[in-house]
Amino acid sequence: MSAGMTAGHTTATVESAKREGKKSLVLVMSKGGADMAYPALILATTARALGMDAHIYFTFWGMQLLTSEGRKKSMDVFPPDMQKAIAAKFPSIEQFMQQAKQAGVHIHACSPTMDMFGMTKAGLVNEVDDVIGASTYLELASHPDALTLFI
Amino acid sequence: MSAGMTAGHTTATVESAKREGKKSLVLVMSKGGADMAYPALILATTARALGMDAHIYFTFWGMQLLTSEGRKKSMDVFPPDMQKAIAAKFPSIEQFMQQAKQAGVHIHACSPTMDMFGMTKAGLVNEVDDVIGASTYLELASHPDALTLFI
Amino acid sequence: MSAGMTAGHTTATVESAKREGKKSLVLVMSKGGADMAYPALILATTARALGMDAHIYFTFWGMQLLTSEGRKKSMDVFPPDMQKAIAAKFPSIEQFMQQAKQAGVHIHACSPTMDMFGMTKAGLVNEVDDVIGASTYLELASHPDALTLFI
Repeated sequence: MSAGMTAGHTTATVESAKREGKKSLVLVMSKGGADMAYPALILATTARALGMDAHIYFTFWGMQLLTSEGRKKSMDVFPPDMQKAIAAKFPSIEQFMQQAKQAGVHIHACSPTMDMFGMTKAGLVNEVDDVIGASTYLELASHPDALTLFI
Repeated sequence: MSAGMTAGHTTATVESAKREGKKSLVLVMSKGGADMAYPALILATTARALGMDAHIYFTFWGMQLLTSEGRKKSMDVFPPDMQKAIAAKFPSIEQFMQQAKQAGVHIHACSPTMDMFGMTKAGLVNEVDDVIGASTYLELASHPDALTLFI
Repeated sequence: MSAGMTAGHTTATVESAKREGKKSLVLVMSKGGADMAYPALILATTARALGMDAHIYFTFWGMQLLTSEGRKKSMDVFPPDMQKAIAAKFPSIEQFMQQAKQAGVHIHACSPTMDMFGMTKAGLVNEVDDVIGASTYLELASHPDALTLFI
């Protein structure tokens, strides 16, 4: 870690980011594994802690994270010993998504994916705010103050 | 779906996005499977419908989508029954790419990938507009009015 | 390649991008395979050649690229004959990362990943500049002049 990365420096520059930086984080979550769900949830909750709006648009394989069964299966990307090591230090994907929701992260389900895979709103977890399509995503992401990533 | 997501609200905010939002969508398409090609093509054609410019820069495994054989193989990421379900509701990747092209989506092939894999322009599908490198991509993506994603 | 893509045209438009475009490229590198490391390193070194700042934030599986062993294993995503073809034309990931570093690309390791996987700074390669978390990444990426991608 360089000398410039002391806690004081980081706080000062983060304060600056709050004032000058973009105001919302808009993530597309296209994968169903916990290996990509953790980075998405860490980024979204950190954005909220920095005072940014945060949205996660779950699409394609990512829609599996919006079902109870898929959320459990999402840990299968890790071998059993790694699953244990992660569980010892981090919340489960289910817990983390509930925490994100409580922190104000908006959870969007993808309408074309539900059509493609024959999913229904009733089969989705409670954290889902709404079902949107690509045009609403582009509307959110194309705002000059938005930072967007495809995960 | 929340009350705010009625059709009227969406239309109004999309109109607003057209006026205030970014003017072009620039996608990097690095994967060769139909599971990532569908999201890319849905985003690009939706961007065109919203009046945005749209570019897809096919690179690395994504270059397989610019060959006839690779385009067919791209569906192998799905089990057979899912392939049938998708085919019943969505155009094939070949058809979808032709529709995107007709809608004005720019199709770029990646020069370093062709060098790495020994591909020739003659082996690519007709939808390809040009062969570009990373500097031309960065030029498109670094425009203040551009929204860019790495898929 | 279209007529407009002659070398002269490209030079002119690249000059324009230098003046008007965004000033920094901030990549999140979440994958551990050479298939995604090559695109990231090509983009980051090209950005430097265009006069942009360039950052790569290695996270999750991408952290494997910051260990000697993981860097070698990163080529396993390719079958042996493709490994040979790539080695004939491109630097190894190790060489390429060293070249990127010399060209001024900033190499950041991810603090939460190190915690999750029990990694230590002493186990990382020399090219690492510092260990940062999601808030510092968001600070870099949310700057109005930054272009950011999740790879």
